[in-house]
Amino acid sequence: MSLRVLTGITTTGTPHLGNYVGAIRPAIVASQQPDSDCFFFMADYHALIKCDDPARIERSRLEIAATWLAAGLDPERVTFYRQSDVPEVTELNWLLTCVTAKGQMNRAHAYKGATDANEAAGEDPDAGITMGLFCYPILMAADILLFNPHKVPVGRDQIQHIEMTRDVAARFNHLFGQGKEFFVLPEAHIEEQVATLPGLDGRKMSKSYDNTIPLFEGGAKALKDAVAKIVTNSLLPGEAKDPECHLVTIYEAFATPEQAAAFRAQLVAGLGWGDAKKQLVELIDAHIGPMRDKYQALMAHPEQIEELLQIGAMKARAVAAPLLKQVREAVGLRRMNALPAVKEKAVKIALPTFKQFRLEDGQFYFNFSDAAGRLLLTSSGFASGKDAGQWVGRLKKEGITALPDAPVALADGVSADDVAAALVALTVE
Amino acid sequence: MSLRVLTGITTTGTPHLGNYVGAIRPAIVASQQPDSDCFFFMADYHALIKCDDPARIERSRLEIAATWLAAGLDPERVTFYRQSDVPEVTELNWLLTCVTAKGQMNRAHAYKGATDANEAAGEDPDAGITMGLFCYPILMAADILLFNPHKVPVGRDQIQHIEMTRDVAARFNHLFGQGKEFFVLPEAHIEEQVATLPGLDGRKMSKSYDNTIPLFEGGAKALKDAVAKIVTNSLLPGEAKDPECHLVTIYEAFATPEQAAAFRAQLVAGLGWGDAKKQLVELIDAHIGPMRDKYQALMAHPEQIEELLQIGAMKARAVAAPLLKQVREAVGLRRMNALPAVKEKAVKIALPTFKQFRLEDGQFYFNFSDAAGRLLLTSSGFASGKDAGQWVGRLKKEGITALPDAPVALADGVSADDVAAALVALTVE
Repeated sequence: MSLRVLTGITTTGTPHLGNYVGAIRPAIVASQQPDSDCFFFMADYHALIKCDDPARIERSRLEIAATWLAAGLDPERVTFYRQSDVPEVTELNWLLTCVTAKGQMNRAHAYKGATDANEAAGEDPDAGITMGLFCYPILMAADILLFNPHKVPVGRDQIQHIEMTRDVAARFNHLFGQGKEFFVLPEAHIEEQVATLPGLDGRKMSKSYDNTIPLFEGGAKALKDAVAKIVTNSLLPGEAKDPECHLVTIYEAFATPEQAAAFRAQLVAGLGWGDAKKQLVELIDAHIGPMRDKYQALMAHPEQIEELLQIGAMKARAVAAPLLKQVREAVGLRRMNALPAVKEKAVKIALPTFKQFRLEDGQFYFNFSDAAGRLLLTSSGFASGKDAGQWVGRLKKEGITALPDAPVALADGVSADDVAAALVALTVE
Repeated sequence: MSLRVLTGITTTGTPHLGNYVGAIRPAIVASQQPDSDCFFFMADYHALIKCDDPARIERSRLEIAATWLAAGLDPERVTFYRQSDVPEVTELNWLLTCVTAKGQMNRAHAYKGATDANEAAGEDPDAGITMGLFCYPILMAADILLFNPHKVPVGRDQIQHIEMTRDVAARFNHLFGQGKEFFVLPEAHIEEQVATLPGLDGRKMSKSYDNTIPLFEGGAKALKDAVAKIVTNSLLPGEAKDPECHLVTIYEAFATPEQAAAFRAQLVAGLGWGDAKKQLVELIDAHIGPMRDKYQALMAHPEQIEELLQIGAMKARAVAAPLLKQVREAVGLRRMNALPAVKEKAVKIALPTFKQFRLEDGQFYFNFSDAAGRLLLTSSGFASGKDAGQWVGRLKKEGITALPDAPVALADGVSADDVAAALVALTVE
């Protein structure tokens, strides 16, 4: 059985080399394991809690998506989406809000920290605190439970949020499940041996210490300039150097064991710091150089990233929508035609339509338009009309769940949301 | 200009005659005014705060929709929808959550009332309080602002919520509007002369007093049985009765002035209570009997109500979705293919350039070329490089505004327009 893993990615700031080694690379490696079913999402609804600068939100989402894709995240293999492209998230957020005890939120670490700081400063405990900060653990529970992952990799500071998620999931299952477990209780997965990369000054690499090495931004030159600033001692070339230093730690984050051993031996034998830095730049650049090219190509074509994210959103919604439907029904938000009754059509609503046709190439196609006649989807060619018809049937019956597998392309300017809405309108019928 | 009015309808419980006279009938009459643009929604997301009985939620939504439709609400004329059919509601709810101060929610009456009761009982202030109760004013703000109504008819107990809605709207407009008013600040509309119908015992008709007269449920018989229980005094037929009594008040809620005067005169003349009640039943039944038939027909065909609500949801979303799109974009949740600035930077468009140099005459000069390297401007000679540099700085910073004063000449064949375009390209950067 495949293990579903869900990873949230913060979308404020530009990733640096420490983020790459500590978070991005291991997550991508894990996503390449057989039997893993990985969901990665950019947590842009969360970003709004701390950031009211729209340009920064926008820029950061772009950079972060380009970074992960360039670093090797395979959007065909994993489900990679933006939180804000999945409207099911905020709906589940409200349903969970109704079953969350306020007392539990009072005890959330991030909120407690903020009130403690206010009290220490002699202010009202809630001064300057928004409801976004206060309610954030519920949104996080919705992020997670909507996809029922088994495992959620988080830092130690996030363990409490996973516990709260388990709590609210258990409460919901208890209140509305009638024996059914709507929500899997997720396990927090703490990487015990997170590779934290030291920064220029030897402390943990972090934007708050201003000691970072850029990942892609600024190109090879920025990398070289940053490495040149790594703090070393003043031993001269020819003098033996202690390889237990943070420059070597950074080197080892990219080296094979053989490379690492050779580098250490050279330093002991008197390799100058300047040459050592040159070797370090070459090693890192051999690793991330090709990624940087890909990053720059992606940054030059945001619309390509957008397209990948739209497909990701479709895949995510294909999982989220059926679960949310069950959850809605469980709390009583059911369609009224679920009652046994004679169906009489009172009003003719124009509905989205599928049309099948054959082109001069002899192949069979279909397209899908919304109620207003706007083209939404066009299919690839099929050898027979029956094949095309089977896909139409599946899309009609299964709705957006069938979409990720369907051999169709979005028409120009159409979003996954538009298609989802039209398919929902159709399946509602 | 038409006045947009938004009315929320609670979906717990079954409407009684007091609800009809006090709320349903006046709202429907108001919706029939020319120039009114009325939105009515069933607040079923709110119902979840207080009710974890799915069957009751489901039944109540059905009864209430059937009641309003039977009572004359015209879904062609107004927009009548279920809150839970408009996913934009919960998304806006989250966006507003991020700009709402927690301190403000601490002061909400409903929440304060609950903590006061807990404290009086010696319990933890937040005992048994859910986040649904605590966050409810934000959801209400989302309900309202999503449709930008001018007027929201509410009871006195809801005035604070409208004030909070105005606050959060103003804050959002201020933070993200850049001069644009995304949200209209709605006015609370308090009906000063709400017709509160007395119940069987003369107190206000209310489920909590168990003194209600049913509206449609139970048919004509239930109406008759309830009216029979209206408390009167023990005066016998033939004895003069004081028409200042609650039975008359109920009668007058359905009577023309002439009917009312005649009824009063009969009582003074000695009409027996039994006969008076019979007249009352006949009067009410003449009014609501035809509605009851329609109610029963609707209750027998929930799928017809469902269809009307689906159409209503479409109408509502046609208003809500474009506004939400603007709001999303304002906070930074934009499609990536709509990013001209980032794109330009990413593709590394060559930019126009200034070059400073010194000629044999000993003087300092600069020139300005466009991205393709075509010479646009040449400066006069300056005594120092610093003077030349200052002009370069001004042109870079102020762009075309500085051009008229600058000691420069256009190169051959160059138009002022070319220079302006190049300077703009530079300042955009």
